[in-house]
Amino acid sequence: MNSFDTIIRGGTVATASDVFRADIGISAGRITALAEKLHGADQVIDATGRLVLPGGIDAHVHIDQAQAPGLASAGARMADGFLSGTRSAAFGGTTCTMSFAVQHRGASLRAAVADYHRRAQGNALLDYAFHLVVSDPTPEVLGQELPGLIARGHRSVKVYMTYEAMRLSDRQILDVLDVSRAQRAITLVHAENHEIIGWLADRLERAGDTRPKHHATSRPLAVEREATHRALTLGEVADTPLVIVHVSGAEPLAEIRRARARGLKVFAETCPQYLLLTEADLDQPDMLGAQVMCSPPPRDTESQAACWRGLEDGSFDIFNSDHAPYRFDAEGKLHAGPNPPFRRVANGIPGLATRMPLLFSEGVVTGRLSLPRFVALTATNNAALYGLPAKGRIAVGADADLAIWDPEKRVTITNDLLHHEVDYTPYEGRIVTGWPELVMSRGEVVVRDGALLAAPGRGRFLEQDISSAFGPRAEGLPWISG
Amino acid sequence: MNSFDTIIRGGTVATASDVFRADIGISAGRITALAEKLHGADQVIDATGRLVLPGGIDAHVHIDQAQAPGLASAGARMADGFLSGTRSAAFGGTTCTMSFAVQHRGASLRAAVADYHRRAQGNALLDYAFHLVVSDPTPEVLGQELPGLIARGHRSVKVYMTYEAMRLSDRQILDVLDVSRAQRAITLVHAENHEIIGWLADRLERAGDTRPKHHATSRPLAVEREATHRALTLGEVADTPLVIVHVSGAEPLAEIRRARARGLKVFAETCPQYLLLTEADLDQPDMLGAQVMCSPPPRDTESQAACWRGLEDGSFDIFNSDHAPYRFDAEGKLHAGPNPPFRRVANGIPGLATRMPLLFSEGVVTGRLSLPRFVALTATNNAALYGLPAKGRIAVGADADLAIWDPEKRVTITNDLLHHEVDYTPYEGRIVTGWPELVMSRGEVVVRDGALLAAPGRGRFLEQDISSAFGPRAEGLPWISG
Amino acid sequence: MNSFDTIIRGGTVATASDVFRADIGISAGRITALAEKLHGADQVIDATGRLVLPGGIDAHVHIDQAQAPGLASAGARMADGFLSGTRSAAFGGTTCTMSFAVQHRGASLRAAVADYHRRAQGNALLDYAFHLVVSDPTPEVLGQELPGLIARGHRSVKVYMTYEAMRLSDRQILDVLDVSRAQRAITLVHAENHEIIGWLADRLERAGDTRPKHHATSRPLAVEREATHRALTLGEVADTPLVIVHVSGAEPLAEIRRARARGLKVFAETCPQYLLLTEADLDQPDMLGAQVMCSPPPRDTESQAACWRGLEDGSFDIFNSDHAPYRFDAEGKLHAGPNPPFRRVANGIPGLATRMPLLFSEGVVTGRLSLPRFVALTATNNAALYGLPAKGRIAVGADADLAIWDPEKRVTITNDLLHHEVDYTPYEGRIVTGWPELVMSRGEVVVRDGALLAAPGRGRFLEQDISSAFGPRAEGLPWISG
Amino acid sequence: MNSFDTIIRGGTVATASDVFRADIGISAGRITALAEKLHGADQVIDATGRLVLPGGIDAHVHIDQAQAPGLASAGARMADGFLSGTRSAAFGGTTCTMSFAVQHRGASLRAAVADYHRRAQGNALLDYAFHLVVSDPTPEVLGQELPGLIARGHRSVKVYMTYEAMRLSDRQILDVLDVSRAQRAITLVHAENHEIIGWLADRLERAGDTRPKHHATSRPLAVEREATHRALTLGEVADTPLVIVHVSGAEPLAEIRRARARGLKVFAETCPQYLLLTEADLDQPDMLGAQVMCSPPPRDTESQAACWRGLEDGSFDIFNSDHAPYRFDAEGKLHAGPNPPFRRVANGIPGLATRMPLLFSEGVVTGRLSLPRFVALTATNNAALYGLPAKGRIAVGADADLAIWDPEKRVTITNDLLHHEVDYTPYEGRIVTGWPELVMSRGEVVVRDGALLAAPGRGRFLEQDISSAFGPRAEGLPWISG
Repeated sequence: MNSFDTIIRGGTVATASDVFRADIGISAGRITALAEKLHGADQVIDATGRLVLPGGIDAHVHIDQAQAPGLASAGARMADGFLSGTRSAAFGGTTCTMSFAVQHRGASLRAAVADYHRRAQGNALLDYAFHLVVSDPTPEVLGQELPGLIARGHRSVKVYMTYEAMRLSDRQILDVLDVSRAQRAITLVHAENHEIIGWLADRLERAGDTRPKHHATSRPLAVEREATHRALTLGEVADTPLVIVHVSGAEPLAEIRRARARGLKVFAETCPQYLLLTEADLDQPDMLGAQVMCSPPPRDTESQAACWRGLEDGSFDIFNSDHAPYRFDAEGKLHAGPNPPFRRVANGIPGLATRMPLLFSEGVVTGRLSLPRFVALTATNNAALYGLPAKGRIAVGADADLAIWDPEKRVTITNDLLHHEVDYTPYEGRIVTGWPELVMSRGEVVVRDGALLAAPGRGRFLEQDISSAFGPRAEGLPWISG
Repeated sequence: MNSFDTIIRGGTVATASDVFRADIGISAGRITALAEKLHGADQVIDATGRLVLPGGIDAHVHIDQAQAPGLASAGARMADGFLSGTRSAAFGGTTCTMSFAVQHRGASLRAAVADYHRRAQGNALLDYAFHLVVSDPTPEVLGQELPGLIARGHRSVKVYMTYEAMRLSDRQILDVLDVSRAQRAITLVHAENHEIIGWLADRLERAGDTRPKHHATSRPLAVEREATHRALTLGEVADTPLVIVHVSGAEPLAEIRRARARGLKVFAETCPQYLLLTEADLDQPDMLGAQVMCSPPPRDTESQAACWRGLEDGSFDIFNSDHAPYRFDAEGKLHAGPNPPFRRVANGIPGLATRMPLLFSEGVVTGRLSLPRFVALTATNNAALYGLPAKGRIAVGADADLAIWDPEKRVTITNDLLHHEVDYTPYEGRIVTGWPELVMSRGEVVVRDGALLAAPGRGRFLEQDISSAFGPRAEGLPWISG
Repeated sequence: MNSFDTIIRGGTVATASDVFRADIGISAGRITALAEKLHGADQVIDATGRLVLPGGIDAHVHIDQAQAPGLASAGARMADGFLSGTRSAAFGGTTCTMSFAVQHRGASLRAAVADYHRRAQGNALLDYAFHLVVSDPTPEVLGQELPGLIARGHRSVKVYMTYEAMRLSDRQILDVLDVSRAQRAITLVHAENHEIIGWLADRLERAGDTRPKHHATSRPLAVEREATHRALTLGEVADTPLVIVHVSGAEPLAEIRRARARGLKVFAETCPQYLLLTEADLDQPDMLGAQVMCSPPPRDTESQAACWRGLEDGSFDIFNSDHAPYRFDAEGKLHAGPNPPFRRVANGIPGLATRMPLLFSEGVVTGRLSLPRFVALTATNNAALYGLPAKGRIAVGADADLAIWDPEKRVTITNDLLHHEVDYTPYEGRIVTGWPELVMSRGEVVVRDGALLAAPGRGRFLEQDISSAFGPRAEGLPWISG
Repeated sequence: MNSFDTIIRGGTVATASDVFRADIGISAGRITALAEKLHGADQVIDATGRLVLPGGIDAHVHIDQAQAPGLASAGARMADGFLSGTRSAAFGGTTCTMSFAVQHRGASLRAAVADYHRRAQGNALLDYAFHLVVSDPTPEVLGQELPGLIARGHRSVKVYMTYEAMRLSDRQILDVLDVSRAQRAITLVHAENHEIIGWLADRLERAGDTRPKHHATSRPLAVEREATHRALTLGEVADTPLVIVHVSGAEPLAEIRRARARGLKVFAETCPQYLLLTEADLDQPDMLGAQVMCSPPPRDTESQAACWRGLEDGSFDIFNSDHAPYRFDAEGKLHAGPNPPFRRVANGIPGLATRMPLLFSEGVVTGRLSLPRFVALTATNNAALYGLPAKGRIAVGADADLAIWDPEKRVTITNDLLHHEVDYTPYEGRIVTGWPELVMSRGEVVVRDGALLAAPGRGRFLEQDISSAFGPRAEGLPWISG
């Protein structure tokens, strides 16, 4: 009998802190050994000359999300369900997704979560968890549903400060934060000032300025800076940790640094679009600019530089895609017609498959980021922050969620490489260096050399632990507990 | 034949990113396997219910340092040579030291380094490296000696902005930084404004205010803030990374954060004395306050809180002792007489053995710091920053420098537990939770249950790699190089 | 025939920029000459050994204000109408008031203004203007009433971010700012985050913490910092100058400084209560703490120091009382019963008469503020900012609104000296140095040696010019226009 | 007998706080009356349709300065002595100069001051004072000469942080500040880091980069930011007010704002060259760029905008020329040859005559600055800060130092309009709006319609009072003192 189901042999392994040569032994879907030399496996995968990285966790993903009435995207359909979403993730080196289970106003959060579980089951190729989006914090939701769901392992909650159908008032946010603090859930915030956006958009509309580029005009950086500072004040008052998602430039990041210096536990995320796109990309002929419309919008080169600096100096903790899978057609982006005003364009950018290759190429290969920092940003920090101890790491006992990267492979990104159901990528034609050739989930090879090898529905729901944001004492000293 | 020389069995292993249960297999002094279950060793060490941590790296240590003429400590003798210094380190869970090889004015740097090598050889119990202290950057030193020493693996250089016999002018610092940049050495800075200190000390002296507490009066936080900002400006002009050592409070730390936001690569260190002592500790009967005289001096509780916040939020990268082993007697602190003015008291605090237990107890056990953050601060980040890839980590291929900690052991600190040659500790009587029971260097048990098991001279000099501060590309892509 | 109606002889005159000896000649209510020696008047007032200062402008005063339903003060009655309000002002060296004309929800702003005009006419002893409070910015108000009122000289508008019956949403504030920008009115903002206050107050109430001191607990400095930053962002988006009233500490003031560095025109006000009271004053036996309940609440000694620094270094532009004349009885503060929870206590502090003597004594006599700075803060800057060119200055052509101060007179403040209808003062028993002995409005002696000499109804409504905030070009170059 | 020697009739008078129509009566050289209508004078000057402003004080002027050995300008001669210097001042609306009395190393400060008195006497057309430049703070200078000179009315002292022949060490600066504090003199600081500049200049020189534009390369903004922060720290330690002269951009200004928020009394000056020139002006054919070489150098348009904002928002207190009258020939700028490296070019820009017209045109006419702010910046604030109570103001009792401006006159600046002995102006050809047509010193018309009417030597030395920076209590309460 062999000691291992699989041995990955000869690769250079990177974790969030170390880079070393090791064979990896895998049994029953978990990493059971890391050693200079391992023998005895049913399957040996050669990783000589390759990097073996933890499979990425993309903790900011929209999949198969039912649209709330009132959103710009209300008439649009997300092209990616859990099958194609996790498929695209896998092709990009990601082995775990965290998408949103969205409560609609007037509806039950618990029921929404159950619905998303149904959508995922039987479809997901990879393991997944859900952030709970609370858009109607009724006493029932705050008193019963939310605590119950948190207790059952949905330990991250997201609130919106914008989007008519989703946004909470400051007071409602405090109510949610209060439950989060008491139940030790971590809270994500989409921080943009809804009323300023609406006011500016109305003015633009009245002036006939309704092209995709005016989407950016309606959401200046000050709008994000304001909401970020406000969210951080709410976190300060409620005394509970926060994650500010999709930070797009220096000003909101400065607010986060100021809050940290005041003593607040706050975590920050940025996304590929804030490193690689600018507002100028929204200003293209016809409706092409709509392809890169997202919120917050891409900014300018100075903001890009600020985001890179934040990745380098540790100001950013996590790096996710904010994948929003709208096709550039009448089912997606252009659901309101072929030439809609920007407010009727579905908002978001696909990015599940490109997230890791883009950061690897532009960050690691250029020398801006070390490999451990790349791993931390794309995988391990998400795991710690969102309570997924078995994921995002190469360590004894962890799930064998891995990707074997050829660090020197040059790939020209084309949409067909991405295996999502979206019909475009904002990065079409961009050449990257480094690509995941083999991707494994719980010891099972999911993608190899561009081919999908796994079956729909093999992915499992992950119950989240308490976030590391609550400190190591949250659940008792970890070294005693078992 | 057994697979391993030693197996550490059943412990909870912590790295700078992960915490997991694993057996550790050790062969020829290196970690060769981490696995759920390992068998076949000459020696099995049971670590059940224990933490297995990387041995600490204390990267800010004064050992057997010859005193430059003109220092307050010029007539004092350091009590710890490489034997007692590394012994004390080992008893506190540290397995690697970086002490200083100090050039005196008018003397050769190369000769000084050779001298320190001689002092260490045959004495050190643990592996060691040296930071080069340049106090006389002559053309010969800048053009020949320093590049030559860097090329031979002394890849960190320290400059002083204070102490008459050591300090460099801004221009001399730029000259050193210029060599550091060209040769890719990392530069450490002791940042206090020498002239302000001298001016204040003269005034205090004229007023008869010469007690130990006036040492702190002569070095207010503004003096450190000023020099920190100046050092960072020099780094900015010379375009090379810096380490600001022994940061003592909010104001200098704010300067560091501002410099990072401007895009400078700057790393920050704090020490136990800035977390646990205050200026009030200098104000004691007789000369007792002299025991805690160090530079910068301990500040106030607000500064302590700022330093803790900086450890928690990632503003600090490394945590070292600044061990300065002066006895509280006529050979050490009081070399100038039994009741000297503060300027004639030898300056510094012992701390090699207490560094890790204090931070574990006050940081990890209290829940302020996670175990991975503790490991990063005390070991792994020092290894990366100072180019010691085999040290400070538990990973396949790394040196088997480990410590097995009982995380629940309560210990009352007394000086005899510390095994240095200093006759006091500022932490006498303090109770800590958590203690390293067994300490191993390159697979050899050095300390076990309070007994020293290793022989003098077994420690080896470590050539440093290029610092991670220069980015992963400094030496070519790491995954290609071997 | 005499050249002047009145000569003030022999005094030391202070303006916002100069201090000099001069006689002042007054004719037909205006200053017509300043000279070393003037002769020929019906009346000569000796000011030898005295200071002659511009009569103060108190630009933040609540007088005879009808309470909006829903306020804590809804059942309370303001004790001061225009007669007693302006009387109290005069006794404290103030000769011009700016109180609020408050629109109630669902009601007409224009009608409200007309009502306040009626309340003032026949009663006011001194000249007055009104800030317009918009609490219901309907299209009619924004499109017709507000522009019309501005055009007729009501050129300052106030918006509230808190108080249920008054507060505007961010979007409504933008709408008002947009009108203000277009019509060149200056906008005042009461900046506290309403929802956070409500949330905290509910929690305190549920915990039974309803004493006056809990009023301060429900409005921490972060609440003011948040709203200040938000208001400044709204000003930035709407591109129009703002006044942040009653700033109470370092954090909101830091927001204002940051906004200025970003290029926003923003003006800042503080009040006596933030210099001289602290939160501790709310914690007194029985309901006594209710006497000093105001919003924002007094803070701590560090906040006091920050406010003093802001007055000294020019961060604050204006200094007003926020006079809110509630008696400490069942008609006023305690309208909801003898022992009400803090939320039912009418909110505000009397201060019209004490504003100038307190700042003179604590600011000028102590040497913190120069006389010109005192004049600027209490009079001239208000005149410039709120478009009252004839007021708040001693200059040829200006209204002869003056006060003759004995700068060395020591006065123990007692409530009967203040001549308002409020039955207490928070400053009872405080000894001040410097007191206005004679106060003159448009050349008429209103108060002399503690006696009122003027008749009700002599005060006139003042049409405001465009604020200096819009720059000297707002109305064309001033030196050409006449 | 007439009441007045002169009446200025019908003008619009502006002070640092007020703008009003008034006749001005002048007797024995002082303003004795301001009134709506004055009669009875030997001379009546019609100012109808004109502005009457205080004559400017230019408090940063180099006149007839002997060059210290070792300066870049050591071989150059200043073209303007006190005759041509004050003449040029008068033609630009300035009626009072403060130039420097410079101690050379090894020489007596007292003797230097006596020498400058001799240079001025018999030559100056206008009243003048001297800042003392201490370049050799010997015990004799600190203990005897400096206190003696301060007591005799030289109440402002300047220290340099750069220029080899002038610069003081941090410690020497503290010594000077200590005397300044004790004797209540105000201290001016030229803040640039000398050693960084030298280091960069050497590198540039080695690379052959010695053109005028490299002057700016050798003095980047960080050099000024560093020295500014250091100077402010020295002021903080010595606990005495400072003036930071010629601030050139956002970063040093931010340091000043930070120091104010810490509680330091610090005043800031900027100059026309930082508003109107940029580094690009140094990059011209031949040696033309040398004409605009000054230290700090002009920066970029962003720095210009920051300086304008600082003037508008009150961050800057004073606006002076830093007039340095080197001809663009072999006696001046090019004393070291026709094509010298930048380090051998005499450093400085002429600006006495253009200072006020440029700020009037670019500041007041454009609407950026109000007239009172213009008066404050160019005259009154200098008077208060440097203790010249009779100057810089239009007030009863003040010296009749006035200028009558045609606010609408358009003038093309040419060098011959400036009446200095420098053979160029950096502003040649620039069109300004507003010009002083008549300039009066102590009641005597000095310049009228482009003609000089006064005789050399009529200017008098001014003893300075204690600076307003020490607060109104410095000399006792002003209203009591006479």
